[in-house]
Amino acid sequence: MQQAVSLIKSSSTILLTGHLRADGDCLGAQIVLYHALSAMGKEVQIMLPNLPDQRYGFLEQKTPWKIFDGELPEYDLLIACDCNELGRLGGMVPEILKRSQPKMVVDHHIMMTPDTWDAAFHDVEAAASGILAIELAQLLGAESLPLAAYEAAFVALMTDTGWLKYSNSDQRSFDMASYLVARGVDSSRIYDLVYQQLEDGRPLGVAAALQNLQYHADGKIAVAWVTNDLLTAGNGSLDDTDEVLDIIRAVANVEAVALLCERDAGQIKVSFRSKTILDVNKVARRIGGGGHARAAGASFERSVGMPEAVAQTLEVLLDEFATQ
Amino acid sequence: MQQAVSLIKSSSTILLTGHLRADGDCLGAQIVLYHALSAMGKEVQIMLPNLPDQRYGFLEQKTPWKIFDGELPEYDLLIACDCNELGRLGGMVPEILKRSQPKMVVDHHIMMTPDTWDAAFHDVEAAASGILAIELAQLLGAESLPLAAYEAAFVALMTDTGWLKYSNSDQRSFDMASYLVARGVDSSRIYDLVYQQLEDGRPLGVAAALQNLQYHADGKIAVAWVTNDLLTAGNGSLDDTDEVLDIIRAVANVEAVALLCERDAGQIKVSFRSKTILDVNKVARRIGGGGHARAAGASFERSVGMPEAVAQTLEVLLDEFATQ
Repeated sequence: MQQAVSLIKSSSTILLTGHLRADGDCLGAQIVLYHALSAMGKEVQIMLPNLPDQRYGFLEQKTPWKIFDGELPEYDLLIACDCNELGRLGGMVPEILKRSQPKMVVDHHIMMTPDTWDAAFHDVEAAASGILAIELAQLLGAESLPLAAYEAAFVALMTDTGWLKYSNSDQRSFDMASYLVARGVDSSRIYDLVYQQLEDGRPLGVAAALQNLQYHADGKIAVAWVTNDLLTAGNGSLDDTDEVLDIIRAVANVEAVALLCERDAGQIKVSFRSKTILDVNKVARRIGGGGHARAAGASFERSVGMPEAVAQTLEVLLDEFATQ
Repeated sequence: MQQAVSLIKSSSTILLTGHLRADGDCLGAQIVLYHALSAMGKEVQIMLPNLPDQRYGFLEQKTPWKIFDGELPEYDLLIACDCNELGRLGGMVPEILKRSQPKMVVDHHIMMTPDTWDAAFHDVEAAASGILAIELAQLLGAESLPLAAYEAAFVALMTDTGWLKYSNSDQRSFDMASYLVARGVDSSRIYDLVYQQLEDGRPLGVAAALQNLQYHADGKIAVAWVTNDLLTAGNGSLDDTDEVLDIIRAVANVEAVALLCERDAGQIKVSFRSKTILDVNKVARRIGGGGHARAAGASFERSVGMPEAVAQTLEVLLDEFATQ
């Protein structure tokens, strides 16, 4: 940790970045550091490997970022946020490897490649990298930050803890939430910006996706599917599936959920969630995808139609469930 | 406030109660006071006017309550929680009115009938009555309570603030959440107990309720409805409507939502939610109900059918919206 502080103190120009398709935590951590380091007189820039999740686009109104277009600016220090696998910086990797300047991480994921980094502000116990970014700012003496930084930290914390309801919502998370609210963050406004920007067609999209729900294995396994035809028949939309998965997983009996959606080009994508025992990462890997133990996904070959995809999903799910 | 403390201190036998179909905040406030007053050596009993929302039944495992069956026990003091309209105590009202013992309220709703009460621990700024119950316990010197009390306060706080995402989620709410977590409350476990115990038919119930959704006033006003026939045709269930309301309110354009459901005896109930400007308490009052500015509800006369109820709801909603 002290090495991270020293590296920052001795650097004038700092490039902040994060993993591909930056989420709330990845962007939040970078934004906190952007303001903290700027306040220290550093020349700071945020450069993302590609477009972030559009849900978080509102953060750009108060903090500038650039999308990598093949060229990296000069820097004394690179800080990767919410990501300690260099490969997850995408197209930036070859350019970064050409540079001799030091690289550090601010991250809460399990450290996969420690040798890549000259320093790490790293703690797997932190519920979000955004928490670490605030703690690093405090350590650097950047105590008073603009509201934009606190809002970004709040986005980081709340999106990575499922708005303080996942099992990583510990004392430190709640204390950090209070700390940020005390500095002016309006919880309801941030919730609105992150989660209440849906299209008119979304409720009908959710309804369509919940209609073809079937329970298997005594109700422990739930499989639902929705086609583009079904969606568009009611002017429904469903560009992400989180709330449908959440509703099905909230059924007391259900251990694991699969939801199959047809994407634009007719390709079928399946998303998995589980509660406590089933490793859906293993399930998804058997269909060519992957993810985490409780949240994973996969895409079928374009030639695979919905009935076949549903059958294959169910077969793999039941098979993995039987071995638990 | 001081009168409330004096009344409690001078009473030996205390009866706690709350509004009909007790919700998380109503039960939570009573449970906090049950443990705080018991710790002070009072003889305490919780008596509910009828069955609480079944979602909160798990709280009874650690704190006993009784359902009113026509007879009230003897008491020196009655404390109504989360409710300052005597009428909302249902069948208990005539029995209470026969007694000369003092009555007080612990509540955060707008005070409708102050003359009913001998004392009030009342603060409309509090996001939940559960917050007031903890503050009253602190004032009474009952600083260290069993985990069951802190869990109940957490249920009260989190359910009344929509898990810290509604506009009443202020600094005091976040500080209280931290305070409770510091005393041992496991946020994720409570979330599971409150929100992930749904029946198999719930996803289909949600789908049914989202199907008859119509937007009005350029998409600012959304009205949805579901009948028992529609629900049972698909084996759907929908004993509470929070997630349906949340899904519709998450549409960017929507300012206010009304959801009409047919209850067991064919009576239609309407629930309202709004985002930022429309006072749905005023809307609900015009249909004989009430609640808060951003969350309210009402029940129609039994003779009113769904089409008429929908029409009346829409008329009042549009009328109130037009005056904003």
